[in-house]
Amino acid sequence: MTFEYIQKKYPDIVTILDAKRADIGSTNEGYVKYIFDYLGSDMVTLHPYLGKEALLPFLKRKDKGCIVLCKTSNPGSGEFQDLKIKRLDSRLRGNDTGSADNKTMRLYEYIALQVSKEWNSNNNCMLVVGATYPEEMKKVRSLVGDMPFLVPGIGIQGGDIEKTVKAGLDSKKRGLIINSSRGIIFASKGKNFAEKAREEAKKMKDEINKYR
Amino acid sequence: MTFEYIQKKYPDIVTILDAKRADIGSTNEGYVKYIFDYLGSDMVTLHPYLGKEALLPFLKRKDKGCIVLCKTSNPGSGEFQDLKIKRLDSRLRGNDTGSADNKTMRLYEYIALQVSKEWNSNNNCMLVVGATYPEEMKKVRSLVGDMPFLVPGIGIQGGDIEKTVKAGLDSKKRGLIINSSRGIIFASKGKNFAEKAREEAKKMKDEINKYR
Repeated sequence: MTFEYIQKKYPDIVTILDAKRADIGSTNEGYVKYIFDYLGSDMVTLHPYLGKEALLPFLKRKDKGCIVLCKTSNPGSGEFQDLKIKRLDSRLRGNDTGSADNKTMRLYEYIALQVSKEWNSNNNCMLVVGATYPEEMKKVRSLVGDMPFLVPGIGIQGGDIEKTVKAGLDSKKRGLIINSSRGIIFASKGKNFAEKAREEAKKMKDEINKYR
Repeated sequence: MTFEYIQKKYPDIVTILDAKRADIGSTNEGYVKYIFDYLGSDMVTLHPYLGKEALLPFLKRKDKGCIVLCKTSNPGSGEFQDLKIKRLDSRLRGNDTGSADNKTMRLYEYIALQVSKEWNSNNNCMLVVGATYPEEMKKVRSLVGDMPFLVPGIGIQGGDIEKTVKAGLDSKKRGLIINSSRGIIFASKGKNFAEKAREEAKKMKDEINKYR
């Protein structure tokens, strides 16, 4: 219903379904039909855990965007995402230090590399990188070139706009879709909720542009 | 609708929503309300990537089951799940070999350990371990004691029942919920689909029991 409304009223607005889906291939075919074709969403967020092979039904859609969870904004995201893994390839040669045994990287860095080097042949991939982790965002930006990020964590979750913009901008000073949900839609519970939401959104936009 | 039908007609049947969900905590609260309270599902499958802190709304529900993806049945599941990570703790001492620098384990093994040692204080966790990976299933069984597994991959996906049962049974010769979906519901496309599905299910059950 929300999608229908947006498509009718604002056909130029790009839509993202932040549904965090991912299943085996045959089930993903169903998600693709529902999310991209029935709802008409332009993009969807995806869990990486099942790997590229399972996510091919999404990745094959050249006309749509696939936004893969990389470093998520929640306080406990490090439990698995920050695990040190043995580096399996030489794609990070510039950063190598020490002996072969010490060559490790974080899981979220490896996922960022895989998505940018192996998953993105249709040039339709993005990454989720939380505003609550500017250091990690800087690291991911250094690994993936100008791939755009979807950035949750601003607003209620406590992420800082200045740090986020400075950490995440690409080489063209673009490349960030910074999202605030609750901070904007719950800006007022009164009858003026629409104006207050607009005000909050504009405030955020101005602050983002201030640091570009 | 399917849930309503099962609950009315077969109130004793345990239901599992294989929806593979996981978001930040506040969004998971909504999933919990929808999946456990509105639909009335007894269990749900979950992606581990955001960590325990995000999944607490599910884990806190002592009356419901949380089935965490560990080693999934799809052919490409190794891309991230089989990554070698640096062992962060001594919970696998029995398996240690070589010097400290060589102590590694696979990501899916680490997730199995975290779920069984850190996430399961309400004794309501299970793991997804695919029938297509009997060696990995054996490994996970050796790490988590009698925690039950949900086992996809039998039927169309090509998993072998004998190998699965031998690899996955717990110390009481139980602990496996072996699932075939397409192999059973699409056993016949004719009017006899109900009988054919029943036949396939019974055949599978008998084969499972043969190897226990």
